[in-house]
Amino acid sequence: MKQGGNMKQSENSMYSQQTLARAIFDDIAQLTRDGEGVTRESFGEGEEMAMRAIERHAIDMGLATERDRYQNLWMRLPNDNRSEAPVVIGSHLDSVPQGGNYDGLAGVVAGMLVLQRLREAPEVAPPVRVLALRGEESAWYGKAYTGSLALLGKLPAGALALRHRSGQGTLGEAMSRSGMDIDAIMQGEALVTPADIAAWLELHIEQGPVMVARGWPAAVVTGIRGNIRYTHVECIGETGHSGAVPRWLRHDAVLATADLLSRMDEHWRVLLQMGMDLVMTTGILSTPAQSHAVSVIPGNVGFSFEIRSQDADTLNRFHALMQEECKAVEKARGVRFEFGECLRTAPAQMDEGWIRCIEEAASLHGAPIERIPSGAGHDAAVFANAGVPAAMVFVRNEHGSHNVHEAMEDADFMAGVDLLYQALLHVPEGPRQAPQQPELVGV
Amino acid sequence: MKQGGNMKQSENSMYSQQTLARAIFDDIAQLTRDGEGVTRESFGEGEEMAMRAIERHAIDMGLATERDRYQNLWMRLPNDNRSEAPVVIGSHLDSVPQGGNYDGLAGVVAGMLVLQRLREAPEVAPPVRVLALRGEESAWYGKAYTGSLALLGKLPAGALALRHRSGQGTLGEAMSRSGMDIDAIMQGEALVTPADIAAWLELHIEQGPVMVARGWPAAVVTGIRGNIRYTHVECIGETGHSGAVPRWLRHDAVLATADLLSRMDEHWRVLLQMGMDLVMTTGILSTPAQSHAVSVIPGNVGFSFEIRSQDADTLNRFHALMQEECKAVEKARGVRFEFGECLRTAPAQMDEGWIRCIEEAASLHGAPIERIPSGAGHDAAVFANAGVPAAMVFVRNEHGSHNVHEAMEDADFMAGVDLLYQALLHVPEGPRQAPQQPELVGV
Repeated sequence: MKQGGNMKQSENSMYSQQTLARAIFDDIAQLTRDGEGVTRESFGEGEEMAMRAIERHAIDMGLATERDRYQNLWMRLPNDNRSEAPVVIGSHLDSVPQGGNYDGLAGVVAGMLVLQRLREAPEVAPPVRVLALRGEESAWYGKAYTGSLALLGKLPAGALALRHRSGQGTLGEAMSRSGMDIDAIMQGEALVTPADIAAWLELHIEQGPVMVARGWPAAVVTGIRGNIRYTHVECIGETGHSGAVPRWLRHDAVLATADLLSRMDEHWRVLLQMGMDLVMTTGILSTPAQSHAVSVIPGNVGFSFEIRSQDADTLNRFHALMQEECKAVEKARGVRFEFGECLRTAPAQMDEGWIRCIEEAASLHGAPIERIPSGAGHDAAVFANAGVPAAMVFVRNEHGSHNVHEAMEDADFMAGVDLLYQALLHVPEGPRQAPQQPELVGV
Repeated sequence: MKQGGNMKQSENSMYSQQTLARAIFDDIAQLTRDGEGVTRESFGEGEEMAMRAIERHAIDMGLATERDRYQNLWMRLPNDNRSEAPVVIGSHLDSVPQGGNYDGLAGVVAGMLVLQRLREAPEVAPPVRVLALRGEESAWYGKAYTGSLALLGKLPAGALALRHRSGQGTLGEAMSRSGMDIDAIMQGEALVTPADIAAWLELHIEQGPVMVARGWPAAVVTGIRGNIRYTHVECIGETGHSGAVPRWLRHDAVLATADLLSRMDEHWRVLLQMGMDLVMTTGILSTPAQSHAVSVIPGNVGFSFEIRSQDADTLNRFHALMQEECKAVEKARGVRFEFGECLRTAPAQMDEGWIRCIEEAASLHGAPIERIPSGAGHDAAVFANAGVPAAMVFVRNEHGSHNVHEAMEDADFMAGVDLLYQALLHVPEGPRQAPQQPELVGV
């Protein structure tokens, strides 16, 4: 374990922490600049550069650093030899290609600032470790959370054969090159078990527009949505002359699909009014480019269908409802829906005790916060689904993420850091709650 | 005018006429065979071969034949020197590439059989001429009815510059090569005026599935649908992360378009129940192939929109309704619809006197017939819109048209021929009705 030889006096004022955070953000943005955005490839050069820069800044801040055998970076207070299971604050350092600077990095820097603030009186909180993970983004190898899954021994061995987005090289090769113990990963060796961690806390920029629209600088995350997803559904009707076939003899695949989507859209609207968490998206929709024509009744339409919810039951029920509506549309319009592969990702619940703790911490400091679901995925889902109590704080961010226009205000970030710090002073008591998500089922 | 030197005794029995028709159909199918179907290119080789074969068969049947300066073929009874405006029975001889044998040809052969049946007592009917037109199909030069438009002096001079579907050569060049008086066509010289023709009668195979579904061997056409057509409408919303943007902040172009189409589909259903004539088709619909993705809220969808009706008012009103619904969807969903060029083709009404006359002829012979609109276009629309009383008889045909699977039964064809013949014995009286179609308007 390295320790900064030139430790600075810790400085807890929000202002100087904000200045420090800004310096770290700017330094790493500079180092990993790629066009207008930043590129920190999972298990690649940019990610390693960010990792080293964080290591350097940590040492400058007087923190102790250590790399584990999977090349994740752990940070702690220098004199912290406490043996209780620590609260781990962390996030990832990789980015999508030409992405934004804060997606992932903000959570690591937040943890470092929390550690710094605990320096004078570490005993007021449980032991805290900060973890900078690798390989969270699916953009590089098609699979998300590869770093946190490996850490917990849950990365499927087959994932190592996943090809890089360029088509050249595999995830396993990149992990090996980055110095990870690839044999241990292949054998599914966990470097930490859920019991080793008291809680996982993660600060992250919001990747949607809700907090900007609502005017919330920070918010507490209720859960991370899972999803049920069809990359391809085909509606099969019957082509015909658009002038010569009357409505009662048509089997119009476009109107059938429009009918299906409008029915599901209306169900979605109603379910939201009933307070359920749900989003539904058809991002791809197309008549066949080779044969479609203005005056031909469309006989085929292909489309994608994705639903996301924090609640596995909601996913399963809405999925079943969609299949029922397909049958109804099939019967009403004489068409057929053919379904491609169904992909499922389980939702993750954030720990209710920690959610309340963060809310109370906010209230005590006069800035009550709201709850928000996370539509995008985060490493916190991996910890939560492994049985670690997990919580997330979202920070307001304009223009979404995965693009160069991310815009997080420093003051909002500091509000998020403060929430994490205050929560640690009011850690929830009582036994750990086992995650109670039902399985996603085929219907 | 040529006259058959070796006239055969006319033979009026339905059975031998059916045999004769079959022989003509088979002969011309054989001559213009192209793969599984037939190819009779407008102003091209296959059309000319069909024209010569018809000429030959007409002479064999004892009919007098004549080509006009636009290379259309006229047929009449050999001793017919009657000066009253004749009823003209006809259709076209061209086909789409690898199309079916009966689309067009059936109407010409029907006229020849009617002439043959009038031979013994021509005075029981008004004078009848049979006309074999050229260039009805839009498949070759992108414009329909070029032959009949030229005949009536209504072919826009600009149309002569239309390029062949291959990209090589123009309509004007092909017309010139086929021996047409291209200078006269350029000057818009009409070879016949509407006043020269007492009525236009056309037998045609149905190009939709209605008559097969209803079990009608023959039917009388009420009108030829016009259309209002957008090749491209763009719905513009806003892309976003499918997990991170909740419903109330979405501007989903796919769901907006599905909403629009479902609203119009429902209006269509109701208008049909109110007895209006209408079809609506979106044959092309697509999210942008370059950028669409399963987990991206679609920001753009392009689609075509076509409505057809026999009634110009219905077209105009439904078009206006569509634009109102676009505004409603824009307001409800925060999207925008951008419209490309709007193309309009006026509907054509068949003559009510002739429709009744055909119906009465059918009733007198114990086989009452039904009325049916024509969704596809026909030369009859050109004559009707020029002020000639026009009527059409449809013959049952399986598998639509413009493909090699056209399937017309000989007995059904003969039922159609008989309707034309019987109608000529009960010609409607009274002054010609002026067509009363309102204009298609922009709204």
